[in-house]
Amino acid sequence: MADPTDVLEDIARPSDDEVRQHRLVVELIGLIGDRDAPGIRARLADEHPADIADAVEQLNTDQQDTLTELCPDLFTGEVLAELVDETRADIIDELEPEQIAEALEDLDSDDMTHVVEELDDATRAAVLAKVSDEDRQALEASLAFDDETAGRLMQREFVAAPSFWTVGNTIDHMRKAGQDLPDLFFEVFVVDEMYKPLGSVPVSSLMRCERDVLLKDLIIPAKVIIRPEDDQEDAAYLFEKYHLISAPVVDEAGRIAGMLTLDDIVDVIQEENKEDLLALAGVNEAGQADTVWSSVRARAPWLLVNLGTAVLASAVIALFDAAIAQLVALAVLMPIVASMGGNAGTQSLTVAVRALASRDLTTANSMRVVWRELAAGVVNGLIFAVVMGVVAAVWFNDFALGGVIAVSMVITLAAAGLSGILIPLGLRKMGADPAVASSVFVTTVTDVVGFFVFLGLAAIVLL
Amino acid sequence: MADPTDVLEDIARPSDDEVRQHRLVVELIGLIGDRDAPGIRARLADEHPADIADAVEQLNTDQQDTLTELCPDLFTGEVLAELVDETRADIIDELEPEQIAEALEDLDSDDMTHVVEELDDATRAAVLAKVSDEDRQALEASLAFDDETAGRLMQREFVAAPSFWTVGNTIDHMRKAGQDLPDLFFEVFVVDEMYKPLGSVPVSSLMRCERDVLLKDLIIPAKVIIRPEDDQEDAAYLFEKYHLISAPVVDEAGRIAGMLTLDDIVDVIQEENKEDLLALAGVNEAGQADTVWSSVRARAPWLLVNLGTAVLASAVIALFDAAIAQLVALAVLMPIVASMGGNAGTQSLTVAVRALASRDLTTANSMRVVWRELAAGVVNGLIFAVVMGVVAAVWFNDFALGGVIAVSMVITLAAAGLSGILIPLGLRKMGADPAVASSVFVTTVTDVVGFFVFLGLAAIVLL
Repeated sequence: MADPTDVLEDIARPSDDEVRQHRLVVELIGLIGDRDAPGIRARLADEHPADIADAVEQLNTDQQDTLTELCPDLFTGEVLAELVDETRADIIDELEPEQIAEALEDLDSDDMTHVVEELDDATRAAVLAKVSDEDRQALEASLAFDDETAGRLMQREFVAAPSFWTVGNTIDHMRKAGQDLPDLFFEVFVVDEMYKPLGSVPVSSLMRCERDVLLKDLIIPAKVIIRPEDDQEDAAYLFEKYHLISAPVVDEAGRIAGMLTLDDIVDVIQEENKEDLLALAGVNEAGQADTVWSSVRARAPWLLVNLGTAVLASAVIALFDAAIAQLVALAVLMPIVASMGGNAGTQSLTVAVRALASRDLTTANSMRVVWRELAAGVVNGLIFAVVMGVVAAVWFNDFALGGVIAVSMVITLAAAGLSGILIPLGLRKMGADPAVASSVFVTTVTDVVGFFVFLGLAAIVLL
Repeated sequence: MADPTDVLEDIARPSDDEVRQHRLVVELIGLIGDRDAPGIRARLADEHPADIADAVEQLNTDQQDTLTELCPDLFTGEVLAELVDETRADIIDELEPEQIAEALEDLDSDDMTHVVEELDDATRAAVLAKVSDEDRQALEASLAFDDETAGRLMQREFVAAPSFWTVGNTIDHMRKAGQDLPDLFFEVFVVDEMYKPLGSVPVSSLMRCERDVLLKDLIIPAKVIIRPEDDQEDAAYLFEKYHLISAPVVDEAGRIAGMLTLDDIVDVIQEENKEDLLALAGVNEAGQADTVWSSVRARAPWLLVNLGTAVLASAVIALFDAAIAQLVALAVLMPIVASMGGNAGTQSLTVAVRALASRDLTTANSMRVVWRELAAGVVNGLIFAVVMGVVAAVWFNDFALGGVIAVSMVITLAAAGLSGILIPLGLRKMGADPAVASSVFVTTVTDVVGFFVFLGLAAIVLL
């Protein structure tokens, strides 16, 4: 335990944090270069596991390997739990199963699961063979639930009390349980005689009440019941909506089996946000630990799909090659129509994906939103029809050409607005993730519509 | 207080939540249509403020106005605090300053600020004149801090204790303070004699220790000190990094002035994620409450910028109109090169923006990431050079044309990778938000490079 009067020097200010962290990385790289194991240990001794993990992630793969070889003991359970998946996998490859098992011992069951779930089958079996029987059973039970479910995410340590207990009973019970309680908890779950949750009492309420107050007079009725098989994203949504700080997870019989806490939910929220953002951009998955090859693997599949749709759009252009040969201005102007359509479609799509993710877009209001998107597309289409019509007419000194691009702009931007909302809604209805494939469908629609309408109208009107 | 044995029926399951909420909206619309004020009050009596707010957001503007007119008392402080900004502004327009002031009374200082900060100046002054002196002083102090700072976000209610107190002293103090304590708190901040924070003791630690244990033996040294003027995004980053549940905010003299809690930080995280996602898609701001006009206003500015860059790309094409007139295949194929470049650039850019936001991309590793992006661009360029080269050669039965598009693909995708990382890094260095303007710069680069290289090479090699 640090002397409390010393700690002020050691404190992170937001503005200093990046500087501090940068200095740590630079010094660590120097010490690794010197293969100075005692120096590394001394430098990292007082650092928070999150800072150590962040610094390790900034090293290149060779430096990470050297560090693991020199100081395998640095990788405590807390440091491992803080690392991003890719880096942790690399580090764990260099550790012995005994070292991993030992590192796991100081973790709560949820963090333990988080580390073990990413191990390959052989390493996982070797590690499970080395942990205590109790930990192994807890791990096997957690791993039996699907990835990204509440069952995987929950911790098995929680505090429950019957509703007829008093505040005093509850405090006495907790004092006696001592180290068997979770490291941190924020609510006592109040249960009936079958261990079913009735609600919760915030620990802060226990603190401010007299010892003879009954729990049932303090209870906040349970607003949410989460089951182990529920998707972690659904659980996160309920936490956010009801501003929960923790929530019980109940088994099939309705009994409490574990607890989710807001700090774990924050990780889920960030993970889901990252997934949506990258999916919209057509990146399968990527972390900072990514090498060139994993970047290529994450991106090439969607580039291939994009190539297919780009060839399809080109086939539309090829239908009108005679018109283009007659009037080259068409080739000059056609990318403008497609580009505006693609942009407007991406705008609608992104708003729709976000509204679906935050559940602001529901069956109750979807028709209204579809009309709004169509109308916004038409209005923007009219605005840019005027602008681009004038530009084209002046540029090529051809009013009919200006008229053609103006009409094409309205139709393409209306199609963009409509496909930007209908495609994600349709994917959602089919049970697919609207973030993943929407972009490519929407830009296919806008490219094909844009080229076809512009070149087709031009062929009819101008030639 | 509900009888605890009743609450089970009322509990939200993730899978049921949407159904329940949909039913509520449908019934509410019916009751509003009937102008049945008592029916509305009865229907909403047992609903959580978050559910009421969600239902109100699903109504159209007319229905919202009718509801506010019929039952202004429905809009308690908690319901107002839950509403999205646009809807809250509409509702508040219909309420009297007295009604708003009354609604605010049951809120903690942070939620009160959250509602008041969005009011226009006249309404704000009228509301401030109606609240209690104490609330007005707290509000004015909060509003003196800039928007999106820790000072705005913090609550002024918190629990602090000197390090020489025992667990027993602390519990006794809290029992005595009772209702003056914040509604919910998770940590007691331990302070020195100058009221400077030394660290914190989780309330759950107080619960499990004997009454004679000293706070200084339980203290978790302060890892983070946040000042009122710090950006809320920086505070959120520290919460996430160190898994904080609450943190003190200190004034210039280093004394605790308020507290940030994780549930408020979750809102900040979601807001920042939403901003990044929409900014990348070129949408200024949008909520579900948006009308057609506000959607147009949010999107037209970026469409205008896009039009400018599209015209620039067209000007590049126009340089080569003679070549296109000679070989129409160039017009057919050129959008493929530009489309692939745009996609690859967006992929790099999105990965970079996310890495900057999560601070995985730092000065320590930025050169490595730039090389990775360039290399990934070249590798993807080579892959799609082969694919597209073969497709073009077969399609137009012209091997030289296949060669030209292959070389253009490598150069364009390399430029895409490089601009996708350098442009956000550059914007960041200049103090701009890399999410906001990167997209348009990157696609300008990829369009111009794609068209110029493909048409230029074709003009040299093929004609």
